[in-house]
Amino acid sequence: MSTIDRQRLLIDELSDRRLDALIVTHLPNVRYLSGFTGSAGVLVIGPSVRKPVFITDGRYTSQAREQVENAKIVISKGPALDAAAQALVMARVGNVGVEAEHMSASLRARVKKLLPAKIKLKDTSNLVERIRLIKDAGEIAAIERAVLLGAELFVVALKAIKPGAIETDVAAEMEYAARKRGAEGMSFETIVAAGPRSAFPHGVASAAAIPERGFVVLDFGVILGGYCSDMTRTVHVGKPSLEARRMYQAVLEAQLSGIDAVKSGATAGDVDFACRSTLRRAKYDRYFTHSTGHGVGLEIHELPRLARNQEDRLAAGMVITIEPGIYIEGEGGIRIEDMVVVTDQGCDALTPVSKELVVL
Amino acid sequence: MSTIDRQRLLIDELSDRRLDALIVTHLPNVRYLSGFTGSAGVLVIGPSVRKPVFITDGRYTSQAREQVENAKIVISKGPALDAAAQALVMARVGNVGVEAEHMSASLRARVKKLLPAKIKLKDTSNLVERIRLIKDAGEIAAIERAVLLGAELFVVALKAIKPGAIETDVAAEMEYAARKRGAEGMSFETIVAAGPRSAFPHGVASAAAIPERGFVVLDFGVILGGYCSDMTRTVHVGKPSLEARRMYQAVLEAQLSGIDAVKSGATAGDVDFACRSTLRRAKYDRYFTHSTGHGVGLEIHELPRLARNQEDRLAAGMVITIEPGIYIEGEGGIRIEDMVVVTDQGCDALTPVSKELVVL
Repeated sequence: MSTIDRQRLLIDELSDRRLDALIVTHLPNVRYLSGFTGSAGVLVIGPSVRKPVFITDGRYTSQAREQVENAKIVISKGPALDAAAQALVMARVGNVGVEAEHMSASLRARVKKLLPAKIKLKDTSNLVERIRLIKDAGEIAAIERAVLLGAELFVVALKAIKPGAIETDVAAEMEYAARKRGAEGMSFETIVAAGPRSAFPHGVASAAAIPERGFVVLDFGVILGGYCSDMTRTVHVGKPSLEARRMYQAVLEAQLSGIDAVKSGATAGDVDFACRSTLRRAKYDRYFTHSTGHGVGLEIHELPRLARNQEDRLAAGMVITIEPGIYIEGEGGIRIEDMVVVTDQGCDALTPVSKELVVL
Repeated sequence: MSTIDRQRLLIDELSDRRLDALIVTHLPNVRYLSGFTGSAGVLVIGPSVRKPVFITDGRYTSQAREQVENAKIVISKGPALDAAAQALVMARVGNVGVEAEHMSASLRARVKKLLPAKIKLKDTSNLVERIRLIKDAGEIAAIERAVLLGAELFVVALKAIKPGAIETDVAAEMEYAARKRGAEGMSFETIVAAGPRSAFPHGVASAAAIPERGFVVLDFGVILGGYCSDMTRTVHVGKPSLEARRMYQAVLEAQLSGIDAVKSGATAGDVDFACRSTLRRAKYDRYFTHSTGHGVGLEIHELPRLARNQEDRLAAGMVITIEPGIYIEGEGGIRIEDMVVVTDQGCDALTPVSKELVVL
């Protein structure tokens, strides 16, 4: 889908909502609608704006000229929102949307003050994000490249994990490999949670040493070409007990049943329910304390949210994670996560890594 | 300064402003006032709140118990702001501040809806940040550790820089060394800008190769123990021309004159002016297109802002950067940056790295 097509989808949506324009301030949305990848930019777009206006500052003059598609480029000396307000006044708009989830209360107040009283600010929610839900072919190709690079880091981690190794050292090896292979960075703080720390669902790599025996949860992703990857594998150091194997098997089956439930038309809640009921049969459901997954794209956490009773329907072209886990204090934790693309009949797996329990 | 002392300073400030409480949502502020280092937490504090209330979710139960000082800990099943609203209702407050620069417009609207009409929300600006301006002894020690680790990365970079090396590979070596030596991460996206790219003030490491001859700007920092470091050095690959040496010397003199101007009681604008006038004498001032520096602490960009005409006065205990630079399209760019602690008489240098031009 071209930048102009994306802009058109948004303009149609704004028309339906009787908004003359939207001030796009959330950078991933700005990038999606203009192509600009820098760290400061605002886009003013809408049915009453003849041509979208992209505003940035002097640091990004050449980058904007190179990247921005189908927008008038304004290099602003003052705050970008002042220039945005000016563009809105010139366009003689009435109702103007702001991205209320991303714009701070103080910036919203400032914009309101900059605009004449006859221009009304309206809070909007997820307008661009809902367009971004369905990935186009170029996006899916970019996500695939990110997922493949992410998957390579699992191999790197396996070499680094041994009793006595420090969690952050494992993360360091993974992050180094990511950078050397072209990643712009990691898509979130790398989780390496070993032994008792594996029972923390959010155990970012710490100064703790990997114990002689126990699970190690690895949850990590890269940013490549602007798109994120996200995967989790849980390995076991030393011989796993029968109970540890039983726990692992339960999470694996839950994850597979979650993937089985994915298809265009299913609700996000259906997928969550599939994971939870499989875990319930193994009597582990009360240890599954988070939601089942989320969309991934330009951001690591996007719509849809796969959680209990979520009524949002999946549709072909969405890219989501399926990541059930269980966490038993004192025992340890397990999470298994893949990314998939929703299709009409089911889904296509993106993460090309075995889920058999790896024992190190 | 203890957590309780920090809380007291804030409560006094709130009293002066006739605010009964403040909803602290900005995580560095939450950390500063409670000790909590996790990624989700809200603090409700103020003259009308008998004991501060810290709210987080189930992922952080044990971490909160371990870290949070002088606050009642609430583990919330729903959104933390709902629990915050409940705490405010219980405390029978009237005027409640929100951190308007950090709270999104939609969250502010949500909090407003959650509270009874007799509780009035007031936008506040930088209340905790202004307390954080003056670093206590423990903070300065933490910053020193971060700066020392950051300085080690310059040595790593020097080994990696050679004609043909890829900018991101240099960054990869630096980031790997940071992680292996205990950093939680980098304090911002590492800048490695070589040859013509050195003329981009914000040239994050790219896939470009380092040319046979030219400047390489290295701007980088680590996060260690929660505190940030920030330094810039510019080196030259190949023999520098006389003009290149002249440019470098001008920036170095500007940076030294900036440091000379730092002392308690000087304005932030005085320091900026010192750098700019030194560059003016060398006829390079029009290429100095950004501000002179900023505070550093739990965040990489904090108050004060050192820029043209800034009237804010420096005071002992502030930690700031001094980082003039010049950028000439087609020629190249140079920036030199140190961190210093403001003292009564002048300042103490933190960055222990020579500023003589390194030729590689």
